[in-house]
Amino acid sequence: MRFSRQMKTVEEALQALLDKLTTLDEEQVQIKEAYGRILAHDIVATCDMPPFDRSPLDGFAVRAADTVHATVEQPVRLRVVETVAAGKVPIIPLEAGCATRIMTGAMMPAGADAVIMFEQTENPGEISEVVGVKRVMRAGENISRRGEEIAMGSVVAKAGERINAGTLAILATFGYTQVSVIRKPRVGLLSTGIELVGIEEPLTPGKIRNSNTTMLSALIAEAGGIPVQYPVLPDDLAGAKEKLTAYIQEVDMLVSSGGVSVGDYDVIASLVDDPDVELLFNRIAMRPGSPTTSLLLSGKPVLALSGNPGACFVGFELFARPALQRQGGQPIVSHRSIKAKLGISYEKPCPYPRYLRGRLATKDGLLLAQPDFNDKAGNLGTLKNSECLIVIPAGGKGKQAGELVEVIVHAAPSWREEV
Amino acid sequence: MRFSRQMKTVEEALQALLDKLTTLDEEQVQIKEAYGRILAHDIVATCDMPPFDRSPLDGFAVRAADTVHATVEQPVRLRVVETVAAGKVPIIPLEAGCATRIMTGAMMPAGADAVIMFEQTENPGEISEVVGVKRVMRAGENISRRGEEIAMGSVVAKAGERINAGTLAILATFGYTQVSVIRKPRVGLLSTGIELVGIEEPLTPGKIRNSNTTMLSALIAEAGGIPVQYPVLPDDLAGAKEKLTAYIQEVDMLVSSGGVSVGDYDVIASLVDDPDVELLFNRIAMRPGSPTTSLLLSGKPVLALSGNPGACFVGFELFARPALQRQGGQPIVSHRSIKAKLGISYEKPCPYPRYLRGRLATKDGLLLAQPDFNDKAGNLGTLKNSECLIVIPAGGKGKQAGELVEVIVHAAPSWREEV
Repeated sequence: MRFSRQMKTVEEALQALLDKLTTLDEEQVQIKEAYGRILAHDIVATCDMPPFDRSPLDGFAVRAADTVHATVEQPVRLRVVETVAAGKVPIIPLEAGCATRIMTGAMMPAGADAVIMFEQTENPGEISEVVGVKRVMRAGENISRRGEEIAMGSVVAKAGERINAGTLAILATFGYTQVSVIRKPRVGLLSTGIELVGIEEPLTPGKIRNSNTTMLSALIAEAGGIPVQYPVLPDDLAGAKEKLTAYIQEVDMLVSSGGVSVGDYDVIASLVDDPDVELLFNRIAMRPGSPTTSLLLSGKPVLALSGNPGACFVGFELFARPALQRQGGQPIVSHRSIKAKLGISYEKPCPYPRYLRGRLATKDGLLLAQPDFNDKAGNLGTLKNSECLIVIPAGGKGKQAGELVEVIVHAAPSWREEV
Repeated sequence: MRFSRQMKTVEEALQALLDKLTTLDEEQVQIKEAYGRILAHDIVATCDMPPFDRSPLDGFAVRAADTVHATVEQPVRLRVVETVAAGKVPIIPLEAGCATRIMTGAMMPAGADAVIMFEQTENPGEISEVVGVKRVMRAGENISRRGEEIAMGSVVAKAGERINAGTLAILATFGYTQVSVIRKPRVGLLSTGIELVGIEEPLTPGKIRNSNTTMLSALIAEAGGIPVQYPVLPDDLAGAKEKLTAYIQEVDMLVSSGGVSVGDYDVIASLVDDPDVELLFNRIAMRPGSPTTSLLLSGKPVLALSGNPGACFVGFELFARPALQRQGGQPIVSHRSIKAKLGISYEKPCPYPRYLRGRLATKDGLLLAQPDFNDKAGNLGTLKNSECLIVIPAGGKGKQAGELVEVIVHAAPSWREEV
């Protein structure tokens, strides 16, 4: 099968992989550990918000009817009967001719139907037994009504949403000390190739250091998974299969780099002929990374990326990240491709769709995609700059600057407005 | 000072704060702990990359001169003298009429000056003592030259860059088991207000749960800081000052929420009159969050945000995040504002610049900014959806859909292409 492979498009290959994946089960986490996790269930408001009628500012709770003759020149004077701090319960119901000094967030006293801010009263810095109201108030003015922001029982966050700082504010407000989230996918991570030495080892002739494992480990964590690092795979088929079969029991997915091409020691490429293995794909109509391979072993997915750092990176973004999203319970797992204007022409013929690493910029409201011209499949020096993959479709002679291209964004852009 | 405050623009206020901040010192971290950290120094390549001339594909190393008569119909037959796997050192120098079977990433044998891929030879799946070369090779073809990607000694990552998966690949490649990074700012975090109860406590009349601390803690960690949580501040001035003075010894910055307005118990607002305190700003020409306050205590910054969740959130993005970037050693700490087209008209008069929370979308290469119309200062239900702040300038009657607006992006957008 190594030299005669059936080609799939990127979309077909991704779908073949996603079809084999299901969302993992849920677990409870404390709110302090919940950042970045995916909600397993809708979150419901456990009380009205605000939970009571309250003042949105510092001033005086009044009866609007008492203020109908108030002007700047002739303020209406009201007797201050109480001061209510936020957190306190007002004791004295407000009667005609009276006012309650009230702080932002404090509960409205009974009988009051408006709040006038300090700055619209006489001598706002002073605390006095009488307040001069300098303007007419409408009934209901400056009151935050119970439940006006959020009604008790309403859904305030949805299953599948990623918990961010704003979600945490909601969980805290409604008293959720813990929350159900989707378990993080455990992703076994391994490399193939006896040319690889550890980061701490000296380079000897013919060897290179293993950079893919370190890179993939970070990408897996970034995509919401838990990387589980395994040793470099043996380069004989039986040994490799034995290890893979053992490892995959311990994880939800295996991701490897290398060993997918037509070389004599490409064990993953050979493994696809094994009767215990179900091949999902091993040839994709794309550059780089066409030998990217996926198979099922013991019913679980193995995603075998190219050993070349650039192709490994692109393969991760196109296949592993969506797969982790699916297992991790995020509803949108397709490539969120958007359209952008190509910033610089890319004038090479493309027999297959090419996924160029690049960056995003803006210019007067246009979104520009800037390809990285050091985009050699093997070039690891610019991987760190990649924010997106720019899709140059197959056929033709590339794309001209200014043409619309599809872009798959994989990292938070470092927003730049071009001048 | 509570009622008579000097107004600064957002830009002036931010500059006043940044001027008081310096980059923190550096520390060594292991590569496994380095993700997301900021490089303290440039990183230099410790070897050429590739470290030796190597084959970029699986095939045969040949002498181009031997192939000048090769065609598909009449392949040139060469004697295979050796097989070189990646990681091995070739032993036999290549002589005329000979070829070396060579795998991707393997070192080139002496005497060879080109590599032909398996697929361009006869019977590519078979291992044989003779190979039939079916095309003419140019000297130098399909060789990855030593140092062609990265030359030893060149700068491969710069001080101030955030370490991502691609940076880790570089560090691993060049044998950096540990790396110097800027120390993370320790940020003391506290709230004011006796209306606040803990997440786990029942709501009693007049109280609300403290959501700001949980939210700010997540935002601080997201911005690269280490949140250090302190108890709710006492609401008397002397007590509050004593606590703040003690806390600030332990951290690089204090961030609080609440207590900045004109209420009787707004301790931060009162503290600015203290002779031990240097006021940076306490009134900003912006909505929401105009009373956002900053001061220096014992030479360190206190950033006091509004207690209102929406204004607290906006204040964090406008002031705390850039401040943390400055202390954390990132070179660009200003607001990275870009231009986008307003997706929906915002037709309210704005006496001060308004910072609307919103989301980004694209449409055929245009970048659209969609304001969140539930953008009440007090509305915490939609904070989780915010990806950016849309700036509606002061004066006029807002902005019409389609007009260019300034946008400050604070979160990775969930890219949506509108249809």
